[in-house]
Amino acid sequence: MTIKDIAKICGVSVSTVSRVLNEHPDVSEANREKVLAVVRELHYVPNNSARDLVKSPSDAIGLVVRGVGNPFFTGVIRAIGEACEAAGYTMVLHQIRSGEDELRAGAELARSKRLRGLILLGGCFDYTPEQIAGLGIPFVCCTYTNSFGTLPADAYSSVSIDDRQAAYKIVSMLTQRGHRNIAVILNSVEDHSISQLRYKGYCQALQECGVEVDLELVEETVTFEMSDGYAGMERLMSRRDDFTAVFVISDALAVAAMKALHDHGKRVPEDCSVVAIDGIEMSSYSVPTLTTLVQPQQEMGEKAVQILVDMIEGRAGNRHLLLDTTTREGGSVCSV
Amino acid sequence: MTIKDIAKICGVSVSTVSRVLNEHPDVSEANREKVLAVVRELHYVPNNSARDLVKSPSDAIGLVVRGVGNPFFTGVIRAIGEACEAAGYTMVLHQIRSGEDELRAGAELARSKRLRGLILLGGCFDYTPEQIAGLGIPFVCCTYTNSFGTLPADAYSSVSIDDRQAAYKIVSMLTQRGHRNIAVILNSVEDHSISQLRYKGYCQALQECGVEVDLELVEETVTFEMSDGYAGMERLMSRRDDFTAVFVISDALAVAAMKALHDHGKRVPEDCSVVAIDGIEMSSYSVPTLTTLVQPQQEMGEKAVQILVDMIEGRAGNRHLLLDTTTREGGSVCSV
Repeated sequence: MTIKDIAKICGVSVSTVSRVLNEHPDVSEANREKVLAVVRELHYVPNNSARDLVKSPSDAIGLVVRGVGNPFFTGVIRAIGEACEAAGYTMVLHQIRSGEDELRAGAELARSKRLRGLILLGGCFDYTPEQIAGLGIPFVCCTYTNSFGTLPADAYSSVSIDDRQAAYKIVSMLTQRGHRNIAVILNSVEDHSISQLRYKGYCQALQECGVEVDLELVEETVTFEMSDGYAGMERLMSRRDDFTAVFVISDALAVAAMKALHDHGKRVPEDCSVVAIDGIEMSSYSVPTLTTLVQPQQEMGEKAVQILVDMIEGRAGNRHLLLDTTTREGGSVCSV
Repeated sequence: MTIKDIAKICGVSVSTVSRVLNEHPDVSEANREKVLAVVRELHYVPNNSARDLVKSPSDAIGLVVRGVGNPFFTGVIRAIGEACEAAGYTMVLHQIRSGEDELRAGAELARSKRLRGLILLGGCFDYTPEQIAGLGIPFVCCTYTNSFGTLPADAYSSVSIDDRQAAYKIVSMLTQRGHRNIAVILNSVEDHSISQLRYKGYCQALQECGVEVDLELVEETVTFEMSDGYAGMERLMSRRDDFTAVFVISDALAVAAMKALHDHGKRVPEDCSVVAIDGIEMSSYSVPTLTTLVQPQQEMGEKAVQILVDMIEGRAGNRHLLLDTTTREGGSVCSV
């Protein structure tokens, strides 16, 4: 059965049938009724729908986000949403908790929502080829790469900054201003993820000026919640009072850590300098303004979508994009 | 053509055909192939799909958000996303700019994404029956009601706080602590929206203790961006230096306004007390902690979805839910 048969049975033109099926407005009500009656009667579906009956193409791009409490992601999600829409796709947002597996969540979403592609925001850096085999659709790691995993470079795409280099850069700003007792607040030193890479950059900056890493100055928070930044700084202060600066893994945690310093009678930067990585809006309104490395939130989201859509539409294969950071000088650092 | 005919042609049971069409895993590969081949050959679609060919039901709930820069919405959006998923729906997020018409955007989204229902976040309070006629699907105004419009109560749903009462409550806290020269920073005093309602509450609190509203102490910001809160406070300070307190329309703007006070050598609360409405995470880490009225972000999102899904699934009609606020005492208020 073809669209021509339908037209013949109805006694209308092929283009009329086409207009009805595509919901164009310029069809008389009588013709519309007639065509739909026949379509229903004969269980007719246009060829492409029949072909794709079990796996119909959708316009959905999945976005799996771990760390819903992380305000850095807000700007990235916004950019991804806008870029998906501009490219003619629908973003399907799926939030997962700290402990959940983003690849499993992505694979389930791919099936249930018939995704064309997937963007992972805030995932792990250690995937194996076996782990991604279940996905079956192109995907982009947004804000991270597979530094600790075994994926060949052409098996996945990524948009990120160089996390180790970024941490090295911002901690070196502290060593150049004379700091040697520099504490660090991060999620974990061995999470095979962003935290471990930034920890490496911190260690490298210290070692370059002959300082050995003092494990008592390393504070692990587990999550990216602001409350953990506050609690982490309190634990640090309860152990030691000789650090003159602290590198915090994210802006949000740094703002909370500055609050903890303030609540315990420590002045920033006079008693303790504070630096971080992110460059979100909130930290430019903290007192003092946070000195931080700015990640390009907007560009990260846009490029992730561009790379994914290029793959979905067959214009290009997997790619990796490393974006630059810029230093935003605030008032949270002084020399010692 | 029915599922029975397909089964007969394939020489398999009806339940096998059903399992193939519904993508159940417990079908042999050989049977799956056989059934799919026949389905494709005959352009068969199950009855319900044929019936809904032109208007197939989707599982999409649209969320149109105005004010993407408003961090208060982040928590609400998160709650809406989780609640949609828990109810078996897919949230389709669409962001609009300040000047855009959310009803037009919602109607377009309803058509292009075949929405089952719509949630509007951050809209205007003055819809007319003519304006909503184009929507054609149930919708919920989240965080606002139609106070300035002409919609009958049974023509729309809403989840909100009592904005006028909330502003009255928090400004009364200032008058009770002796303040009389109280400035206000809000979007507009006559936007037929949240800002106008909160302005009314501010006026009422002043009038109750015999203070006339001084228009020079009323600062309009147009948007909810933090930069506007900062600039608004600067304009206020350039006009007047005799106010002892300020009510700011949102937490984010209040944090930025406190920063402007600090940058101009004013101490909070000693030189100027600051209060707001929202209760977002950020403002509990400002220095000092902001005193604010907390809106239940999580509950607002959950209830909006619940009301909408009840309508989509035919369990209930339009409803209106007014939620309570709670005061969060910070350190940004002192007595005079």
